[in-house]
Amino acid sequence: MSDDIRVRLADTAADVEDSLAALLPQPKVKGERLAEARLIEAMRYACEGGKRLRAFLVLETAAVFGVARDRAMRVACAIECIHAYSLIHDDLPCMDDDDLRRGRPTTHRQFDEATAVLAGDALQTHAFTLLADEATHENAFVRIALIAAIAKACGAAGMVGGQMIDIEAESAGEALSLPEITRLQRMKTGALIEVSCQAGAILGQADTAHMRMVEGYGRDFGLVFQIVDDLLDIEGDAATVGKAVGKDTEAGKATFVQMLGIDNARDRAERLTEQAIAHIRPLAGRGDVLAALARHALTRKN
Amino acid sequence: MSDDIRVRLADTAADVEDSLAALLPQPKVKGERLAEARLIEAMRYACEGGKRLRAFLVLETAAVFGVARDRAMRVACAIECIHAYSLIHDDLPCMDDDDLRRGRPTTHRQFDEATAVLAGDALQTHAFTLLADEATHENAFVRIALIAAIAKACGAAGMVGGQMIDIEAESAGEALSLPEITRLQRMKTGALIEVSCQAGAILGQADTAHMRMVEGYGRDFGLVFQIVDDLLDIEGDAATVGKAVGKDTEAGKATFVQMLGIDNARDRAERLTEQAIAHIRPLAGRGDVLAALARHALTRKN
Repeated sequence: MSDDIRVRLADTAADVEDSLAALLPQPKVKGERLAEARLIEAMRYACEGGKRLRAFLVLETAAVFGVARDRAMRVACAIECIHAYSLIHDDLPCMDDDDLRRGRPTTHRQFDEATAVLAGDALQTHAFTLLADEATHENAFVRIALIAAIAKACGAAGMVGGQMIDIEAESAGEALSLPEITRLQRMKTGALIEVSCQAGAILGQADTAHMRMVEGYGRDFGLVFQIVDDLLDIEGDAATVGKAVGKDTEAGKATFVQMLGIDNARDRAERLTEQAIAHIRPLAGRGDVLAALARHALTRKN
Repeated sequence: MSDDIRVRLADTAADVEDSLAALLPQPKVKGERLAEARLIEAMRYACEGGKRLRAFLVLETAAVFGVARDRAMRVACAIECIHAYSLIHDDLPCMDDDDLRRGRPTTHRQFDEATAVLAGDALQTHAFTLLADEATHENAFVRIALIAAIAKACGAAGMVGGQMIDIEAESAGEALSLPEITRLQRMKTGALIEVSCQAGAILGQADTAHMRMVEGYGRDFGLVFQIVDDLLDIEGDAATVGKAVGKDTEAGKATFVQMLGIDNARDRAERLTEQAIAHIRPLAGRGDVLAALARHALTRKN
C-alpha cells in the first residue's frame, strides 16, 4: 500500500497543480498584461509545488462521502491557497527569514518583501472567493459551512494564533510544557489539516457521527505530521526536504522532539497514527486510503 | 446639514468602536490570558480609532433599504476589520514604512513587525468569520453574496491589486496616465468604499436598479474621498490628519493632484460629488444622509 499511496499522492499533486493554475487569477487578460500582474505572478509562484497534503485530505475525505472530485477540487485548491499564503508570510524576514521553500527561492527572495506580503494577503482572499462561488456547491449553506470552518481554522484561534505563540515562545526563550506545545501545534499546523478533513465531510453533508470520525482522524494525523516534520528538521537533509533543515533546532523552537527526545517523539507519532486510524475504522474499506496515508506520513522523507 | 452629518459620523464612530470591541476576539478567556494574547491585542489595537467612513456607508446604505442597524453593524465591523488589516500591512517597513496612524504609533511600531503581519492576516480572516455567521443574516444566500462581493473588492482585482500597482508605479518612477491612476485608485481605495455601499443594498435584498444606484454613488464617492486625501497630504497638517503628511508628494506617488494640479483636482472632486449625488436622486429623502456625506467629504479636514 505504501507504493500505491505514493503514486496516488503524486497523481493528486499533479491534478492540484493544474487546477490551481486554472483557478488563480491570470496576469494577462486578452493578451494584455495587467498593471497588477506582478502580484498575480507572485501568487501563482507561491502556489507552485508542494506535497498537496491538505488538498489530498480534502479530496480523499470527500471521496469517502461520495462527493464528485471536480467539486472537491475547488475546496482543495482554496485550502492550498491558504496554506501557500501562510508559507509566504512565515518565510518573511520578520518571521522565520527563510530563503528556500519547496526547493526554490521563497516568494520574498524571488520577488520582494512588499510583493510577498501582498501576494499572501490576496491568496487568503482568493480562497474565500473560491469557496463563496456557487461552482463549489449549489447549496449556499454548504458553502457558508465551509467558509466558517476554514476561517476558524486559519484565524487567531487557529493557524495564525499558533504562529504567534511559536514566535513568542522562541523570543522569550522559555520552554513550553507538553500541553502548551500540543496546543501550539494543533493551532499552527493541526487546525488547517483537521479542517481539510472536515471540509470533505461538509461537502458530503455527512452526519455528526461521520463528521466526528474524520475530525478525530485529522486531529491526530495533524500531530503526527508535525512530529515527523520536527524529526526531519533534525535527521533529514535539505535537498530531500526542500527547505532549510536544522533551523528549528538551532532556534530552540518549541517542538515535540525538543521536549520528548527523538525516540519518544517517534513512539508518540506511532501511537497517534494508530489512534488516527482507529477513528475511521467504522468507515471500513471507504477509509483505506486515509489509513494508508496516515501510515505513509509516519515514514515520509520530505 | 454639514453639522448634522458631523454629529452623525461621530455617533456612528462611537457605536462602531463599541461593536468592534465586542466582536473581536478577547485576549483573556475566563480571566486567563491566552498564549496568543499578543496577536489579539494587536488586532484590537489596529481596529481602534479611525473615522469609520466605510462602516458609516454600510449602515446608512442599509438604512435606505430598511435593514435593522444591529444587523448591518456586523457587516460594518467586518469591513472595518478588512480596512484595519490593509492599513497595518500598508504601514509596514517594506511598504510605506509609516510610524504614525490615526494619531498613534502604527501596529508594527507599537508591537513588532511579525506581530503586525499576523494581526493583519487574522483581521482579514476575522472579517469572513463575522460575515459567515448566521447572526449577520438568516438567509445563507445573503451571507454568501456579502462574502463574494467583499472578497472581490479586497483581493487581487481590488484593494490589494491597487496597492501593488501603486508600489510598482512609485518604484518605477514612471508617471501613470489619468486612466491608469483612476483604475489604481478605484482598486486601492475605491473598491472597499464601493462595496461598503453595495453591502447595505445586499443586506436589504435590494433590486438591481437600486443596487446600481448605490454602487454608482459609492464609485464616485470613493474617487472624491481619494482626491481629498491627496489634497490633505499636500495642504493638511499632521496633527489634524492623524498621519504623516507630504509623504506621498515626496515619494512621487501617482495621485490625481500630482497629475491635475490642486485646482483641477478640486474641480474634479466637486464634479464627482455632484455625480455621486445624482446617482441616488431617485431615492429622494431616503438618500439625504448619503448626499450630505458626499458634500461633507469634499470639505473634510482629516
